[in-house]
Amino acid sequence: MTIQAELIENAAGRRVPAVVNGSETVPYQGVGKHQPQGRKSGPPIRISSDYPANGDKRLPDLETALRACGLADGMTISSHHHLRNGDKVALQALEAASQLGVKNLRWFPSASFPCHAPVVDLMEAGVVHHIEGSMNGPLGAYCSEGKMRGLGVLRSHGGRWQAISDGEVHIDVAVIAAPIADAFGNCNGAHGPSACGSLGFALADSIHADRVIVVTDNLVPFPCIPWQIQGNNVDFVVEVESIGDPSKIVSGTTQITRSPDRLKIAEYVACFLRDAGIMRDGFSFQAGAGGIALAFAAFLREMMREAGIKARFIRGGSTQVLVDMLNEGLTDYILDGQTFDLAGVESIGSDARHVPTSPFTSYNFNGKGNFATMVDAVVLGATEVDVGFNANVVTHSDGRLLHGIGGWQNCLFAGCTILAVPAMRDRLPVIVEEVTTLTGPGELIDVIATERGIAINPRRTDLIDATRDSDLPIRPIEELQAEIESICGGKPQRPKLTREPVAAIKWVDGTVIDTAWRVAG
Amino acid sequence: MTIQAELIENAAGRRVPAVVNGSETVPYQGVGKHQPQGRKSGPPIRISSDYPANGDKRLPDLETALRACGLADGMTISSHHHLRNGDKVALQALEAASQLGVKNLRWFPSASFPCHAPVVDLMEAGVVHHIEGSMNGPLGAYCSEGKMRGLGVLRSHGGRWQAISDGEVHIDVAVIAAPIADAFGNCNGAHGPSACGSLGFALADSIHADRVIVVTDNLVPFPCIPWQIQGNNVDFVVEVESIGDPSKIVSGTTQITRSPDRLKIAEYVACFLRDAGIMRDGFSFQAGAGGIALAFAAFLREMMREAGIKARFIRGGSTQVLVDMLNEGLTDYILDGQTFDLAGVESIGSDARHVPTSPFTSYNFNGKGNFATMVDAVVLGATEVDVGFNANVVTHSDGRLLHGIGGWQNCLFAGCTILAVPAMRDRLPVIVEEVTTLTGPGELIDVIATERGIAINPRRTDLIDATRDSDLPIRPIEELQAEIESICGGKPQRPKLTREPVAAIKWVDGTVIDTAWRVAG
Repeated sequence: MTIQAELIENAAGRRVPAVVNGSETVPYQGVGKHQPQGRKSGPPIRISSDYPANGDKRLPDLETALRACGLADGMTISSHHHLRNGDKVALQALEAASQLGVKNLRWFPSASFPCHAPVVDLMEAGVVHHIEGSMNGPLGAYCSEGKMRGLGVLRSHGGRWQAISDGEVHIDVAVIAAPIADAFGNCNGAHGPSACGSLGFALADSIHADRVIVVTDNLVPFPCIPWQIQGNNVDFVVEVESIGDPSKIVSGTTQITRSPDRLKIAEYVACFLRDAGIMRDGFSFQAGAGGIALAFAAFLREMMREAGIKARFIRGGSTQVLVDMLNEGLTDYILDGQTFDLAGVESIGSDARHVPTSPFTSYNFNGKGNFATMVDAVVLGATEVDVGFNANVVTHSDGRLLHGIGGWQNCLFAGCTILAVPAMRDRLPVIVEEVTTLTGPGELIDVIATERGIAINPRRTDLIDATRDSDLPIRPIEELQAEIESICGGKPQRPKLTREPVAAIKWVDGTVIDTAWRVAG
Repeated sequence: MTIQAELIENAAGRRVPAVVNGSETVPYQGVGKHQPQGRKSGPPIRISSDYPANGDKRLPDLETALRACGLADGMTISSHHHLRNGDKVALQALEAASQLGVKNLRWFPSASFPCHAPVVDLMEAGVVHHIEGSMNGPLGAYCSEGKMRGLGVLRSHGGRWQAISDGEVHIDVAVIAAPIADAFGNCNGAHGPSACGSLGFALADSIHADRVIVVTDNLVPFPCIPWQIQGNNVDFVVEVESIGDPSKIVSGTTQITRSPDRLKIAEYVACFLRDAGIMRDGFSFQAGAGGIALAFAAFLREMMREAGIKARFIRGGSTQVLVDMLNEGLTDYILDGQTFDLAGVESIGSDARHVPTSPFTSYNFNGKGNFATMVDAVVLGATEVDVGFNANVVTHSDGRLLHGIGGWQNCLFAGCTILAVPAMRDRLPVIVEEVTTLTGPGELIDVIATERGIAINPRRTDLIDATRDSDLPIRPIEELQAEIESICGGKPQRPKLTREPVAAIKWVDGTVIDTAWRVAG
């Protein structure tokens, strides 16, 4: 289905839809340029005498609970991705909505995964109108092909919090999968057969949604401690046999890359932090769970040990490597948005120094500051970068929308943002003339590290000065680009894109930074 | 100064002002009868780029911070009573406002104490227009004498949360005293030279106020863990030499009563819980820090030990007795609104089973339930009770407003509410014909325990049946009343009250349940 929309050019020179799913958009205006007005949204006032005095809010099943919530055509229903590709709850909820005969829902997941592929059928059947949220895999492909009846809207973790708390997205019913909960609705993610770590992604929904349902397979007597989600924000509790497939919720171990090229990138990045003087007592860093990021953390750990240096905090996505560093005394704290392996889950559930965070504390741009700007260095990936240091994380070079933004945009505000990327993928250069989809503006990206050398953003003269005596292969980005192109046989082809938008890519402040276009059949 | 106001009669037959400080009131309509409309209030949307990227929000002093907050004539400034009679911050803030030349402030403390007596001078000077919040001691007397230019408004802890979150009270500037904080504004109350336990009373202000200042005498590097108040809600941080007088913040020990009469009341109450079958495995209770309550907890502890019974949770105000019960395994958790002695502070700062609560989780009536209704039994005090089981906690029998409501009203929703009161005070009967100031409706008060006998509310036939075989002196309240009057030489005199309101007494839902009147000179 083709979507017609007026397009306007934003401050980054990208064409974006003037209207998205019936609401006027604000085009991206530059970093920190958009000045929002007004007050944050509040949920409806409820009174406790409408809730059971004994605190028991259980209903027998999701269908009953959704009916009690008054779920109706055209409403917005939200879910969350802390169970990742093992989640069973979002689909159960949408299927229960289908049983109720409800149509044209906006599904507002914090992210969707391949396990949610059957939502395609629910979109075909008219139960779900469209998805607003990260679409990994098959749902992204469905969207890319222009089959969704509304536009996709991709937001960062912080941007999702911003959209909810500022009233841009009104959630009618939030469905929260909880690895441990009590009948009052207090819950957390750190314990039980489906333990995933933190429920931070669901926190905004629990505070702002009109109605909140907690779904658990591990009910304990009140009080469930700690209450990361507070029962005082919860309307109903539903027990199910299983909220997820533990083998897909977290991996037992996350693998450090064995690729020599990627190991080299990881080592370069660790050495860069050392040589630039960022690795010093009391510093902080964040790295994800990808193979390069894991290897980077392992290299850095070694250097910290050697130099006798201790971090004040490390931001997770936590993994065994970070947990080891905490236990070894190489950091005072792990501040953790999500746990990526069983060691992370075990640690966040038992060590008071391993602290769950939320997109509010970590990332929300429309707040009184957030943690992301206080992190000294962050190591991220990208699908493409360009010579202006702009980067893309949502589409592939063929224009297909296959990834969510996650916390990536929010992390760009760290003291030093490093994109650690292989020089080429499938013999296609990763450094391009202009990124297919602008996800992060170059002015926030400081370093691009590949196995063929490291490019520092010319704006960061401080980093250039600090690493002047380093042995690292620090080179202008154009030189890196030319070398990679010479190996790959020239510049990559630009993807064939239509002029039909399929998704709006939001910047952290709620403005639209770019558009994903329908891929040419 | 005399305040003229139209009076209307509420559902309890009490005359209450139709307008309080310029806002129309809703008269009390009965328990659970008022149906509020609308949505909760939200604070202004802020953007993180207006805050320091390094997270350092410090300003040199309170005057600078209040100026940066834009404090102006007629605004509302809030403070909190977790430092109790040792608090130095509220007065410092109001004096800084005075230095700025600001006039006619509404001071909105969660409670005021004798240490705040100098606020009388600030009211005389026109800096503070009036106080909305519990007024203990000299400020209550000032209000009672009709000297305040506006009406006092007394709210329960839960009612204060309700008023803030539902938008009834708009706080322009919240000033939060923090025993430990980082420069970003994360803070808690459990550590440092001025440790007080929990900062729960300040939580609503931190979420809803337009501007938030954290004042600390114990700054630590980011992150301050745990962040009971989140720095993401904080605008400015001010360091001062001392936020309070530790000797007055918490007592080293809280004394169990030595009065034989009061010990007898405490034992009666503990036996009542046992005989009524309330003391059973997995039960819960709440008792305060008064001499009777402490003795009650000690008696109950003994009975629980003997019977091999374990509570699921105990609600604090925590004390040494409760902490001992936690450590001894007589309860799984302490859910704690405030700590009353050093043992409580030590425990809440170090034991994950000793959990800080807030008026939101514990008490807020306009929420999706709260903890208060889930507590099996609560033991409270009162200044007067009447034969309809109505009770007064805010005025003395002479009509003087000398106490705040605290969590008292909110606790009435427990499974079994017991008022433990001496039969007489200063040879005046505590059981009266009609309470001077209605603070809690009789339908929520189940048991009145005195040293001369125990009266069960006739509505609670279940409790009457359950204790039919008890050896306790359970008697009709009229019989108790008559006996006490015969000892005291008759019914107490009714106080001489004017028809000039000086304060509105709120019910938990924001309606006005009664009025405090100017006492006749």
